[in-house]
Amino acid sequence: MNIVIIGTGNAATVLAKKFVAAGHHIIQVFGRDLHAASKLAYEFDTESTNYWSVIRKDADVYIIAVSDDAITEVARHLQLPGRVVAHTAGSVSKDVLKAISSHYGVFYPLQSLRKEMSTLPEIPVFIDASDEKAKDVLNRLAVSISPEKIMLANDQDRRKLHIAAVVVSNFVNHLFALAEDYCKKEGLDFQQLLPLIEETVMRLKTVSPKHAQTGPAIRNDQPTIDQHLQLLQSHPQLKKIYELMTNSIQSSAGSSNN
Amino acid sequence: MNIVIIGTGNAATVLAKKFVAAGHHIIQVFGRDLHAASKLAYEFDTESTNYWSVIRKDADVYIIAVSDDAITEVARHLQLPGRVVAHTAGSVSKDVLKAISSHYGVFYPLQSLRKEMSTLPEIPVFIDASDEKAKDVLNRLAVSISPEKIMLANDQDRRKLHIAAVVVSNFVNHLFALAEDYCKKEGLDFQQLLPLIEETVMRLKTVSPKHAQTGPAIRNDQPTIDQHLQLLQSHPQLKKIYELMTNSIQSSAGSSNN
Repeated sequence: MNIVIIGTGNAATVLAKKFVAAGHHIIQVFGRDLHAASKLAYEFDTESTNYWSVIRKDADVYIIAVSDDAITEVARHLQLPGRVVAHTAGSVSKDVLKAISSHYGVFYPLQSLRKEMSTLPEIPVFIDASDEKAKDVLNRLAVSISPEKIMLANDQDRRKLHIAAVVVSNFVNHLFALAEDYCKKEGLDFQQLLPLIEETVMRLKTVSPKHAQTGPAIRNDQPTIDQHLQLLQSHPQLKKIYELMTNSIQSSAGSSNN
Repeated sequence: MNIVIIGTGNAATVLAKKFVAAGHHIIQVFGRDLHAASKLAYEFDTESTNYWSVIRKDADVYIIAVSDDAITEVARHLQLPGRVVAHTAGSVSKDVLKAISSHYGVFYPLQSLRKEMSTLPEIPVFIDASDEKAKDVLNRLAVSISPEKIMLANDQDRRKLHIAAVVVSNFVNHLFALAEDYCKKEGLDFQQLLPLIEETVMRLKTVSPKHAQTGPAIRNDQPTIDQHLQLLQSHPQLKKIYELMTNSIQSSAGSSNN
């Protein structure tokens, strides 16, 4: 397929790489920041622009990969009757694209994408579409870059997936950041925790996390919990998280025993 | 080395497997539960007992891998003058073993160990010892099963490592469990989040989690946060965690900007 990429950030860059790796052609990159747009276009041996008026009209699909609040602005400038156009946001309704074309939808990558990635990650894609034509094109594009079955997710489903993603990625990363900070302050080597972290994640493939819960909280090991809270006196932010997570683990265990 | 394993649980089982894989000999397994002890002994083609009086006196090292509160009980029953003995607990002082022998210490595996593991995980080992003899034996044992440099960690360091381990493993697993529960209730497939989770962890090898933080909280994207909290009305436990983690992420960002 011939694809126009609108945006030059993390999602735009990684998706464009995935598309090219799957044999598609990026025929143009649009970016408000022309420098970023031409840099990305150079990578794909294609053209770039920061003028709405010169956006090509002959692509099979237009992927709007910009920040949530910029999508509406993009929609105000684009008129692509007959073309298929999609944004990539979890928490934005597909209907913000209504005025651009009658064939619109969403191409939502459930993955954390960063320009700097040296290897392209596996990306489960969820699509939504206004009509059969958009659905067909977005589905074929998704199938070409994602090894798994492509799933449909309407605005509401996508918002819920986004919540789950925030929990397992943003919140988990914050726990890593707090632990790293704690290790640094206490003269411990955070890197020594990596095998444990990898094991915790590996286990998800075979055991439900509900049944893999271990540690002082689930054991109701109050002496250890007290000792830990004592040692966390000088780390108030982590202490607060420790208390809340311990309570939450214990209340989950309590409710599943009932 | 010739090793006596005291205990039949997760740590006892996995450490024994690691020892055998490294060429050591398990010459006896002690377990209060004789059935469990003989089952484990059978696996290593060795003998088992549940009598303190028949514990062999000729091993190079005795590994006490029992629950934290059972260690003191074990120590009351064991007399092994001249022998090297160690427990495996993060939060228990090495000195509870003082009465057993003058060569005592700790052999602390910083890993989540489960009997059911089909492949043995990488295990960073931290040791502590009462004297040079115990240090030498425990160090050689640790080097034989752990690819990395062996680190010394006294009682206080080990407690702190345990806290960090609780954060990155038990708390992280609890976030996975909450997300899985949420997905189940909302008709979403938790397994679709695995590539995202793997990417979040993979990234730790190259980027500090502090610099890898993404999501609505760090972006101060209040409309998305409000939308998420609205959708979490019917999930009060997850909503509470969402609020606390969001505040914590924002307060970390605030303090590092100062």
